[in-house]
Amino acid sequence: MQLLEERIRREGRVREGDVLKVDSFLNHQMDVSLFEAMGREWKRLFDGCGVNKILTIEASGIGMACIAAQSFHCPVVFAKKTETKNIAGEVYRTSVRSYTHGRVYDVIVSKDYLGPEDRLLLIDDFLANGAALSALLDLAMMAGAEVVGAGIAIEKAYQPGGELIRGRGVRVESLARIRAMSEEGGIEFC
Amino acid sequence: MQLLEERIRREGRVREGDVLKVDSFLNHQMDVSLFEAMGREWKRLFDGCGVNKILTIEASGIGMACIAAQSFHCPVVFAKKTETKNIAGEVYRTSVRSYTHGRVYDVIVSKDYLGPEDRLLLIDDFLANGAALSALLDLAMMAGAEVVGAGIAIEKAYQPGGELIRGRGVRVESLARIRAMSEEGGIEFC
Repeated sequence: MQLLEERIRREGRVREGDVLKVDSFLNHQMDVSLFEAMGREWKRLFDGCGVNKILTIEASGIGMACIAAQSFHCPVVFAKKTETKNIAGEVYRTSVRSYTHGRVYDVIVSKDYLGPEDRLLLIDDFLANGAALSALLDLAMMAGAEVVGAGIAIEKAYQPGGELIRGRGVRVESLARIRAMSEEGGIEFC
Repeated sequence: MQLLEERIRREGRVREGDVLKVDSFLNHQMDVSLFEAMGREWKRLFDGCGVNKILTIEASGIGMACIAAQSFHCPVVFAKKTETKNIAGEVYRTSVRSYTHGRVYDVIVSKDYLGPEDRLLLIDDFLANGAALSALLDLAMMAGAEVVGAGIAIEKAYQPGGELIRGRGVRVESLARIRAMSEEGGIEFC
């Protein structure tokens, strides 16, 4: 998606440790008009697929998921990260290893809001090693929900996550795919 | 706001420990069309106030803040909760005592995205003891930003937060104000 790639080129900053900072428009400050364009693009890509719910994960996925939901006319559910083992009520639960924060945390969704009647579009801001998206897939499987596909803002295509998730039979549509990036060489898209 | 009050009456569940569960439509599963109506109402209330940025706090405020931002044609910044003391880059930082989770955590915003040129609308899902909203006010003050007001979905009017924040000179517009609630007696609005 040209609009997103241009924005990444203009405002994205490559930092040590394979970090791409896009917090001026995507995941700290959020450009809602960009999210609208992204939502329309995911709608175009997944049109006719019968999406009736969007599943995302806190916190960076929530904004773009809500805006995308306007195109799909469906609710959003966000999976919650928790270090608490005991949560009242019935939840689906899996765990995620965060490479960014160097720890493992649990991810939960209430059983009330995910079930076999759901045709899910998974939404997240980044796909790199695939840990967060795998967790969302796990939760969907536990619920017996069908995953129509995953809408990703930025995929680091040189990382294993994309292959991992597509290898699980999931259609992944990333709006910007990065082939390579470095502090010196900048950002190269696929 | 009648639409929100009706929804709370229909789907809200009062639980032990002064908990109001509204996670079927507000803060776990999210009804984006309800958020649109809430956003329009905040726009009506704060129209002409020159809001040029919305500041919220992760995670539950993000969805409604992004949808509201469509009415205000402005970006959203969300304050991040962190237990990490060392964050790369320059941030404004304060701390919040969470009564729900029984601990203190830091809240940060990058200095890049909050400054004296900002006329802020603060958005959050709940106002009870006022801890989270106070933290957002602190961050705004550190940045020299002007706070136009606060848009709250649900205020527990019998808790001290509303008075605390209004006592700091902030205009608070809560779309549903609860006078009293109990497991037996249900929910009574102001």
